[in-house]
Amino acid sequence: MANGDSISIEVQDAKAAAKLEKVPMLAHPKNENKGWKKGIAITDFVLRLGALAAALGAAATMGMSDETLPFFTQFFQFEASYDDMPAFMFFVIAMALVGGYLVLSLPFSIVTIVRPHAVGPRLLLIITDTLALTLSASSGASATAIVYLAHNGNASANWLAVCDQFTDFCQGVSGAVVSSFVSVALLVILVILSACALRRN
Amino acid sequence: MANGDSISIEVQDAKAAAKLEKVPMLAHPKNENKGWKKGIAITDFVLRLGALAAALGAAATMGMSDETLPFFTQFFQFEASYDDMPAFMFFVIAMALVGGYLVLSLPFSIVTIVRPHAVGPRLLLIITDTLALTLSASSGASATAIVYLAHNGNASANWLAVCDQFTDFCQGVSGAVVSSFVSVALLVILVILSACALRRN
Repeated sequence: MANGDSISIEVQDAKAAAKLEKVPMLAHPKNENKGWKKGIAITDFVLRLGALAAALGAAATMGMSDETLPFFTQFFQFEASYDDMPAFMFFVIAMALVGGYLVLSLPFSIVTIVRPHAVGPRLLLIITDTLALTLSASSGASATAIVYLAHNGNASANWLAVCDQFTDFCQGVSGAVVSSFVSVALLVILVILSACALRRN
Repeated sequence: MANGDSISIEVQDAKAAAKLEKVPMLAHPKNENKGWKKGIAITDFVLRLGALAAALGAAATMGMSDETLPFFTQFFQFEASYDDMPAFMFFVIAMALVGGYLVLSLPFSIVTIVRPHAVGPRLLLIITDTLALTLSASSGASATAIVYLAHNGNASANWLAVCDQFTDFCQGVSGAVVSSFVSVALLVILVILSACALRRN
């Protein structure tokens, strides 16, 4: 393992230096560095739990949002559900995927707490977090575009606002979108934290 | 600067080790490491140029997409333009911002080529790249949701497809969306490359 090599070289150097003179400053920054990295790893774990809750909350809220209007004609009942809109279905699937990924990433986050200097798990986390961030931002943004249209309509394309009728549905969907943005913000912070922690080994 | 300290310690160690014995293996991995980092930095620069072209292309294509139908009534002329849709306006603004950011980031990318071991510029690039990625993915996805709706319409909400009339407009808009996804993919690769390059210093 290449990492092991560099460590053994460092030990050799330390020994060589110790033969010449006492160098207490060599040990001190290493410990301080470790505490700082452990702090980042614990923050990472806590934020990951927050992002997990936000993602699963968004998926559940969107998945359970449906409304049936209290009046109907002989042939037709007015009903709105998330599976009427492809963007909302993509939102539910993507948010459930991000939530599942965040659950699976928790053990790796714990590994970085136990071993603050391990590079492998952190690198894996930053790569997968970036992909989860992209998925999460895309699904949140596409659902937002549709929610905006449902609230306001569009005069040029002659698309009417449907939120006047389906008030509860629109409220549930808007809440899910807000929750997805919380998860996006937390994932951005997670990526930046991991980058800072990777900085010095 | 803390980084400078650690470098000076390393030089001291190397001197101390050199006094005791010849250690050619100390010099070799360092050089190899530097070449590897330089390769990543050059790839970063090239991909950054690609992402820049894709982002500016997307903004320009969307910004110039408008179509006026060849028939009109006495009071109304049928015209479609990107500023009819808030999602498309957000797309143009966000893509222009990402393009502008990518131009400004080129000097920092050149700094990482010249100094492959500099941590500061790389850390700055990974943080700002993550933000640009989020912005780019959001604007691309929201425009995609509207483009899909323009192509297919939605029976549940009674929104009709408008691409039957505005064929050229829809083609231009779809091209812009595809171009934005190219820029998103390149930004994801840029973030992952930067993370790999930060790994060992």
